[in-house]
Amino acid sequence: MKNTFGQSVAVTLFGESHGAEIGAVIDGMAPGILVDEDFIRHQLTLRRPAGKISTARVESDPFRIVSGVFEGRTTGTPICILIPNSNTKSGDYTRGLPRPGHADYTALCKYHGYEDYRGGGHFSGRITAPLVAAGAIAISALREKGIYIGTHMASVGRVKDRSFGADLNADIDLLADLNFPVLDADAADRMREEIEAAARDGDSVGGTLETVVTGMPAGVGEPWFDTVESILSHALFAIPAIKGVAFGDGFEMAQMRGSEANDALTTDGNTVTTKTNHNGGINGGITNGMPLCFTCAVKPTPSIFKAQDTVDTETMQNATLELKGRHDPAIIHRARVVVDSMTALVLCDLLAQRFGTDYLSSK
Amino acid sequence: MKNTFGQSVAVTLFGESHGAEIGAVIDGMAPGILVDEDFIRHQLTLRRPAGKISTARVESDPFRIVSGVFEGRTTGTPICILIPNSNTKSGDYTRGLPRPGHADYTALCKYHGYEDYRGGGHFSGRITAPLVAAGAIAISALREKGIYIGTHMASVGRVKDRSFGADLNADIDLLADLNFPVLDADAADRMREEIEAAARDGDSVGGTLETVVTGMPAGVGEPWFDTVESILSHALFAIPAIKGVAFGDGFEMAQMRGSEANDALTTDGNTVTTKTNHNGGINGGITNGMPLCFTCAVKPTPSIFKAQDTVDTETMQNATLELKGRHDPAIIHRARVVVDSMTALVLCDLLAQRFGTDYLSSK
Amino acid sequence: MKNTFGQSVAVTLFGESHGAEIGAVIDGMAPGILVDEDFIRHQLTLRRPAGKISTARVESDPFRIVSGVFEGRTTGTPICILIPNSNTKSGDYTRGLPRPGHADYTALCKYHGYEDYRGGGHFSGRITAPLVAAGAIAISALREKGIYIGTHMASVGRVKDRSFGADLNADIDLLADLNFPVLDADAADRMREEIEAAARDGDSVGGTLETVVTGMPAGVGEPWFDTVESILSHALFAIPAIKGVAFGDGFEMAQMRGSEANDALTTDGNTVTTKTNHNGGINGGITNGMPLCFTCAVKPTPSIFKAQDTVDTETMQNATLELKGRHDPAIIHRARVVVDSMTALVLCDLLAQRFGTDYLSSK
Amino acid sequence: MKNTFGQSVAVTLFGESHGAEIGAVIDGMAPGILVDEDFIRHQLTLRRPAGKISTARVESDPFRIVSGVFEGRTTGTPICILIPNSNTKSGDYTRGLPRPGHADYTALCKYHGYEDYRGGGHFSGRITAPLVAAGAIAISALREKGIYIGTHMASVGRVKDRSFGADLNADIDLLADLNFPVLDADAADRMREEIEAAARDGDSVGGTLETVVTGMPAGVGEPWFDTVESILSHALFAIPAIKGVAFGDGFEMAQMRGSEANDALTTDGNTVTTKTNHNGGINGGITNGMPLCFTCAVKPTPSIFKAQDTVDTETMQNATLELKGRHDPAIIHRARVVVDSMTALVLCDLLAQRFGTDYLSSK
Repeated sequence: MKNTFGQSVAVTLFGESHGAEIGAVIDGMAPGILVDEDFIRHQLTLRRPAGKISTARVESDPFRIVSGVFEGRTTGTPICILIPNSNTKSGDYTRGLPRPGHADYTALCKYHGYEDYRGGGHFSGRITAPLVAAGAIAISALREKGIYIGTHMASVGRVKDRSFGADLNADIDLLADLNFPVLDADAADRMREEIEAAARDGDSVGGTLETVVTGMPAGVGEPWFDTVESILSHALFAIPAIKGVAFGDGFEMAQMRGSEANDALTTDGNTVTTKTNHNGGINGGITNGMPLCFTCAVKPTPSIFKAQDTVDTETMQNATLELKGRHDPAIIHRARVVVDSMTALVLCDLLAQRFGTDYLSSK
Repeated sequence: MKNTFGQSVAVTLFGESHGAEIGAVIDGMAPGILVDEDFIRHQLTLRRPAGKISTARVESDPFRIVSGVFEGRTTGTPICILIPNSNTKSGDYTRGLPRPGHADYTALCKYHGYEDYRGGGHFSGRITAPLVAAGAIAISALREKGIYIGTHMASVGRVKDRSFGADLNADIDLLADLNFPVLDADAADRMREEIEAAARDGDSVGGTLETVVTGMPAGVGEPWFDTVESILSHALFAIPAIKGVAFGDGFEMAQMRGSEANDALTTDGNTVTTKTNHNGGINGGITNGMPLCFTCAVKPTPSIFKAQDTVDTETMQNATLELKGRHDPAIIHRARVVVDSMTALVLCDLLAQRFGTDYLSSK
Repeated sequence: MKNTFGQSVAVTLFGESHGAEIGAVIDGMAPGILVDEDFIRHQLTLRRPAGKISTARVESDPFRIVSGVFEGRTTGTPICILIPNSNTKSGDYTRGLPRPGHADYTALCKYHGYEDYRGGGHFSGRITAPLVAAGAIAISALREKGIYIGTHMASVGRVKDRSFGADLNADIDLLADLNFPVLDADAADRMREEIEAAARDGDSVGGTLETVVTGMPAGVGEPWFDTVESILSHALFAIPAIKGVAFGDGFEMAQMRGSEANDALTTDGNTVTTKTNHNGGINGGITNGMPLCFTCAVKPTPSIFKAQDTVDTETMQNATLELKGRHDPAIIHRARVVVDSMTALVLCDLLAQRFGTDYLSSK
Repeated sequence: MKNTFGQSVAVTLFGESHGAEIGAVIDGMAPGILVDEDFIRHQLTLRRPAGKISTARVESDPFRIVSGVFEGRTTGTPICILIPNSNTKSGDYTRGLPRPGHADYTALCKYHGYEDYRGGGHFSGRITAPLVAAGAIAISALREKGIYIGTHMASVGRVKDRSFGADLNADIDLLADLNFPVLDADAADRMREEIEAAARDGDSVGGTLETVVTGMPAGVGEPWFDTVESILSHALFAIPAIKGVAFGDGFEMAQMRGSEANDALTTDGNTVTTKTNHNGGINGGITNGMPLCFTCAVKPTPSIFKAQDTVDTETMQNATLELKGRHDPAIIHRARVVVDSMTALVLCDLLAQRFGTDYLSSK
């Protein structure tokens, strides 16, 4: 399996940046889930570039669901979502000068020059559009079960957002409609400035995305090898530009002592919770009923306007690349909804594996 | 699939901390690979506790290879490696008071009380012993292809080791025989002190492990979803205590600009390399021929001797846990060889998928 | 995984009989394979009904390849093939009276009434159209490697065709363009009569399909559990109406003695072959270099015009079904190209697993 | 995956005929299932040769369960069952003269001479012993859910048994303890004679095994590609010597008309059943609540004492093979329990996928 992920609920991605259509197939979603096309449209809007800080290529993303949905609900059979590519300017791209930090050179090594090189081809972040559409169905299904996902930009360059507050669902609500998903409005302004400053320099910035999931039942996941961390990181590292994934306090735990990192258990007589959540809701690879928390490192987008050293792979000579065209100085704000979507699809899969294929069904 | 990982080369783990035997099955290793039992023994020694900083439970790990090896070489059929559990003191463990930070409570949620709770059961780090034995065969096979793996403790608590030097293979060699895998001898001493200080407090420490792999060919991995980062992180997050995985400069890339993070390409006319390696040898999920680099965050071992709040899950009352028995104040130095082993098994799988099942064969 | 099959080369199917579009995604095909759209069209023609013996629903099947093909060759990334449904008469179908022998009742049990019931929905033989398109690419790729596949109707009802002759490739050639794939012209006439007689009675007939594959290299397949028989039968039993699969002499071997069933080995000094091929080119689950041979039992199509007992699942009362609409009195001649296509996709997968992902590449 | 099969409940096999130990790992069995070691022993007895009609190699099969069972019940973690090989006479076997009908030559093609050739190595029917032990646990678990499996020898050579009677569970009971599983005692006698006659000729016989499963709930299985037929045949074709698998009336359906092959539905107001069961309990790949029925063709065991033509693969010269040693003139009576075991493991997997990992749990 290469472009398919998941066991009980699986997603398959296909398409190239400048191909005719791109799409996703979601297989194994329970029957009877309401499919809200407005919500899919809304989620696609969050992924779409907007304003000064994004590429000038704007796609209206007029998706079509061509299978697996009947009378407004999932049938239980594969859902194929298609999005045509309309606004392509292939002339902006040149074969033979691989862009540093991009997949151009590795694609050549793997596909021997047969790859569709235009706009990054199959490696393009564009392929995340159908993933977001697919994820919207998963997010809706999880909400019906009381499971909510929210992601904010914990940092952009050196600017930091505030942490999630005590009322996680309130923060998740707040983020749901933000195109620029930051909890603190002042931080948002400074992050925008950070991005614009990079843009002025013909450069780009990265950041970190922090995600929380509330409402996940305890007892989901496997000790070896399909820990919740394993499955989530597998999916998250498939998102272009993500170079680090950490759960709970993540790399900070490496500096803690056990007495700080352990989450004491407590009960009100009915349920067991933990007083802290340094472990991000996962122990031994299995959910403990606390919110899942994880952070992704997003590298700065590699398409920059500064001159860069590269190699002409036709002549095997050193060369200089000066990019033209449309490029984002930051994609992290757009990557947020991709992280939410991937997370939702993974959780649907884990729940269906654990509790059966009808678990998310409305019946 | 739960306790099995890999597509072309797969490993299955079984066993419990206090069960009769633990083991691993490696399936899909190419035929004809020399199996060096001394090297397996050596690798198991690296995993074994030693000295003041480790648990007093020492196992001689007398492994048996009961299948898949004939006349000293792999046959190509499944290799089963068994290790008996001899030195078990089950009386040290009590059911019903789950240890904070451990899998005790999540195991209960998943297995409803049928789990073998003794010594962490199937969740125990003990299960990594057969994984290390399996990994030793993989490491040998990769070396025959010029692929070398090395891991050091980049940090323990707040003490840092030096980074890998320019001659990676020299550092990999240096680390190969160290029970306490640190590049800088002074740092090693300070790390030991850090661990002993925690032990004196009845506490524990974590750290970070930095891994490099040299010699990996370019063009291995998949864009969606089986990126090299995805597959490696999937496997690494199955190792108990690992809470973060980052590739190349990882979370530091989140603060870089694109012009810093991009690795310029260069050629000598024959091969293409990059001038820097911020991306850790992977672009678009596919190897670029540069060394693979990644870092794992290891949380402090949760078994500490300080009193901790927990819940008596039988009576559903709050309770206090005071652990007795044998517990490591740090497991990070022992986790190193587990990371190497898991990495080796994953790389064998990726190479066999890419180049066929005979790729690692000596013929 | 539900609607996806294959490890290194995988196919995903989606769509419903009366949905907007149906399609297939082929993932993992080597880069550089020529994609001949005329040949795809030709193969789709073989699947399409024609003449008195077939349904009056004729689809022109104007497929679109929307990804994975660039400048006429495969890129190595997922190939999505879409076929719109244009000629749908949903009014012919009624919900609530499940057709005996069909999936209507089992779909209800599985999907709880959310399934798209029109025309069999996702269970419809219509979904084999994109499979045939996908298979055409696989068949082309295999031919480049000297691997040829041919299937004939060994029997229809009680009428039998002659067996494959000594020159298998000549017979494969003969079959390649036949809409009604029978080796013996007289047998073909009698088979047509058999089908027409059933049609006059408002009834239907089945038969057997015999397949040979020439040119497969030896040493492909796995002893447990992925024998060539296992993988092929897994795929073949996914084709609607197939109820039996047998390799080599199949069920006749049950009446042989070992001295008859064993295939003696012989050599010309260079290669090893067998004097007979009772085992159908497979021993111990692994190819031996001889032609693969297998036979599929195709049951009579369940849509007949005779009155049949069924149950009104809304009222839970016994009822009588009198089908109207368009129905084939036989689908076996159309199923032939589906068997060829499924076989080709499976063989591409087995070869890529064995020899690597570039094996079928033109480079 | 090669030697592992199953998604939610998976089994891994390892070992060689003359290796130190052989075994199986079952992963994903629900926690809390009673493990009855006497029943495992009983099932192993059914697989063991007995009397004149079997090989003189008798193994007592003293299995050990070394993991996954605690206090007499499954824990939910992997169950490893080991069986030592004690009664090996490796001197009986010669390398270099591959036995016709066996895997010797294909093993050489695949493993390049590194395979353990003694006694068929990993291809040996001996490897089914741990499979039977694993299957015994699955059979017990299914019985707790009211699901029963029974297999008889429908034919041996040209001798036929009676069909299953109307009371399937009575016949299943009858077969449960028979070493020579035939419903009709006279037929049993004639089958024994058939086998002994072949033995006197230094030859061997095959036959067919007919299996029924009662109590399977409706709605299990997938339309593409994981039909119940697909999954069962995948597993069954991994059993050595099985060359054909057919469901319901199988190949006889190829000669029926639709009006004969369709199973009319009927109801008593509460449940829906079919009046006949030509389709073997499966429509569209999904169970319909009727008994599952299928038949396997077992070829005559290829080890015979008659002189056979073969090839000396060292010298690449034609040669004559005269087998000595211990060989069964028939293995079909022993294969019966292997079919039951494989079926049970597959059904546990299908049920766990459909209804969740706790479905078979006693809690």
